[in-house]
Amino acid sequence: MSDDMGSIATLVGEMTTTAKRAIDAKTKPIESLGRLEDIAVRLAVVQNTLVPAVERSRVCVFAADHGVADEGVSAYPKAVTAEMMKNFDAGGAAINVLARAGDVEVEVIDVGVDADLSALSGIRHEKVRRGSRNFVAGPSMSDAELSAALCVGAHAVRRAGQDGVKALGVGEMGIANSTVAAALLSALTEQSAAVTVGRGTGVSSSGLLRKRDVVDRAVALHIPHGASAIDAREMLRRLGGLEIAAIAGATIEAASHRIVLVADGFISTVGVLAGLRVLATEDPDRLAALRPALFFAHRSTEHGHGLALDACASALGEKARPLLDLELRLGEGTGAALAMPLLRTAAAVLREMATFASAEISAGAHGDAHSVA
Amino acid sequence: MSDDMGSIATLVGEMTTTAKRAIDAKTKPIESLGRLEDIAVRLAVVQNTLVPAVERSRVCVFAADHGVADEGVSAYPKAVTAEMMKNFDAGGAAINVLARAGDVEVEVIDVGVDADLSALSGIRHEKVRRGSRNFVAGPSMSDAELSAALCVGAHAVRRAGQDGVKALGVGEMGIANSTVAAALLSALTEQSAAVTVGRGTGVSSSGLLRKRDVVDRAVALHIPHGASAIDAREMLRRLGGLEIAAIAGATIEAASHRIVLVADGFISTVGVLAGLRVLATEDPDRLAALRPALFFAHRSTEHGHGLALDACASALGEKARPLLDLELRLGEGTGAALAMPLLRTAAAVLREMATFASAEISAGAHGDAHSVA
Repeated sequence: MSDDMGSIATLVGEMTTTAKRAIDAKTKPIESLGRLEDIAVRLAVVQNTLVPAVERSRVCVFAADHGVADEGVSAYPKAVTAEMMKNFDAGGAAINVLARAGDVEVEVIDVGVDADLSALSGIRHEKVRRGSRNFVAGPSMSDAELSAALCVGAHAVRRAGQDGVKALGVGEMGIANSTVAAALLSALTEQSAAVTVGRGTGVSSSGLLRKRDVVDRAVALHIPHGASAIDAREMLRRLGGLEIAAIAGATIEAASHRIVLVADGFISTVGVLAGLRVLATEDPDRLAALRPALFFAHRSTEHGHGLALDACASALGEKARPLLDLELRLGEGTGAALAMPLLRTAAAVLREMATFASAEISAGAHGDAHSVA
Repeated sequence: MSDDMGSIATLVGEMTTTAKRAIDAKTKPIESLGRLEDIAVRLAVVQNTLVPAVERSRVCVFAADHGVADEGVSAYPKAVTAEMMKNFDAGGAAINVLARAGDVEVEVIDVGVDADLSALSGIRHEKVRRGSRNFVAGPSMSDAELSAALCVGAHAVRRAGQDGVKALGVGEMGIANSTVAAALLSALTEQSAAVTVGRGTGVSSSGLLRKRDVVDRAVALHIPHGASAIDAREMLRRLGGLEIAAIAGATIEAASHRIVLVADGFISTVGVLAGLRVLATEDPDRLAALRPALFFAHRSTEHGHGLALDACASALGEKARPLLDLELRLGEGTGAALAMPLLRTAAAVLREMATFASAEISAGAHGDAHSVA
């Protein structure tokens, strides 16, 4: 195992060096395109080429309901999940609009909405069950349901790969799922609800207190002997949601493909974190392979997102710096859709820019750096 | 004048309220699209419509040489300006690649490159003179040359408006122009070179000291009695560059058109600042009209950019928060090109998203906010 891991790290290191050298030959001062250069190098590593391209990008919106919605943790009734699925199907939701504007594909997947959505032809029907169970009373899912939800995410990654999609965003929809994500994050990081629970998409102050109480109670019920007693997969089963499990499954699967995975906001990042933690214990080689391929789209204003990013960084062994900071807190994959043009553009820098040699530009007088201003 | 100013402010205020109400009716929690919503509202105000669109966007690259390059303030020889013009013409420079990837037009304008570029068919030839004079010895420009350079920028805005361009980025190219921008910023803000001068695109440590000395000497020569003694237009004439004056001219002109202006990085922001300061003294009504139309693309890593942004904010009477923070320090309008998809997408949010009513989504249970999670 350590040999494989070493060889993955070596291959990544070699391609990183080669791609950095290629970027440094471009007609611009060294490192003057900042983070865009880092993205370009990582795309070269993931695609194993010095002419990377992101012709097709896609955002998957995994949707599910949550039994814990019965505890009054959201400002909105559970019916809104199904109503939003109709909105996605009709193309009127934020993710539809942002994706169209950014030339990004959208795939909406019913992993567990508590409604009959069979009449909607524009979404994928992969319902595991009609909503997860209320975790204040028992586990969210059975083993079989967790496996099925993980598979939905894994299949989405494989499908994207087969379709030639080079960057896949993972988004979500589900009334009460910021509560679920907070509970799972509390379990994974051993932090209290005060740190992980925020207002979601607009709960009142009394609702916020109710959310925190629900999360603290659920964690106490399911993780009575501390986080070290059970693994990430089991935490996901007890405290996760079906769409969050699908995102974890997509993360695990992405490690085996030459595809970029783009986390969206708070809930999506917690799903990715769960996937990383599963990989860390079950398959650390693949975790190393995933490292250059995983991007965090944006810094959400949701309370627990910073903690979730830090926990991802810790699992990855490197920084998890979001690409955008636009004060988004919507979910649906909207941040991921906004980040796709940056990936597409970064690939073009490496693929299309002239070099100092090809453009016959004079070398720097002092040789301390290539400078064009 | 104060009546006009009052009426502009009233019109802007009314449209802002109307557009905010329209955004709040969309199927998403209130303000959950963060800064994208602010952009959308400002586009509605500038375009005076609730269905704004940014079908066409463009980046102008104003290029010129600078006599002060003779002082050894850049790591590169002056010839690189002309060489980069050939690179722009051939489509191999960063701005070409970023603009293509983002579906943004590029217009490269020779305002004062010290070379015969008449053989380049892909650039606009509006040369005022072959480079500005070395400002350590005398003023950069004559009155007539300043006026001509301002006109080049103004014409670029009018041309964009006639072409149906809705968002115009202002970028620049010119060896030594980070020194020129620093000198002008020092004059406009009464700050020393230690605050305004950075490494540009890669000068050595000794070069940095030389830049600072040059800037402090130039400011002492041209502004001997403090900044209050002369106006922004005269500072621009004595210490500016031809491409920076063109950017100032574009800023002044943009205030009279329903077009969005996007500042790029450090040098471009200093040009915009000079334009704002001219407007503030000569035509404050138009400064009020420009306020919703002016965006700052990104936060550059160049030393003086924060000060330049703060000075713009002070001139505008509101925050000047860049949209992106990607550690760019290249210029050419590259940051502006990267920001264009955000403007295009923000317009689409207001224009295309469904409303709670149209999509028949349930209202919030508590009425404190629309929440869909």
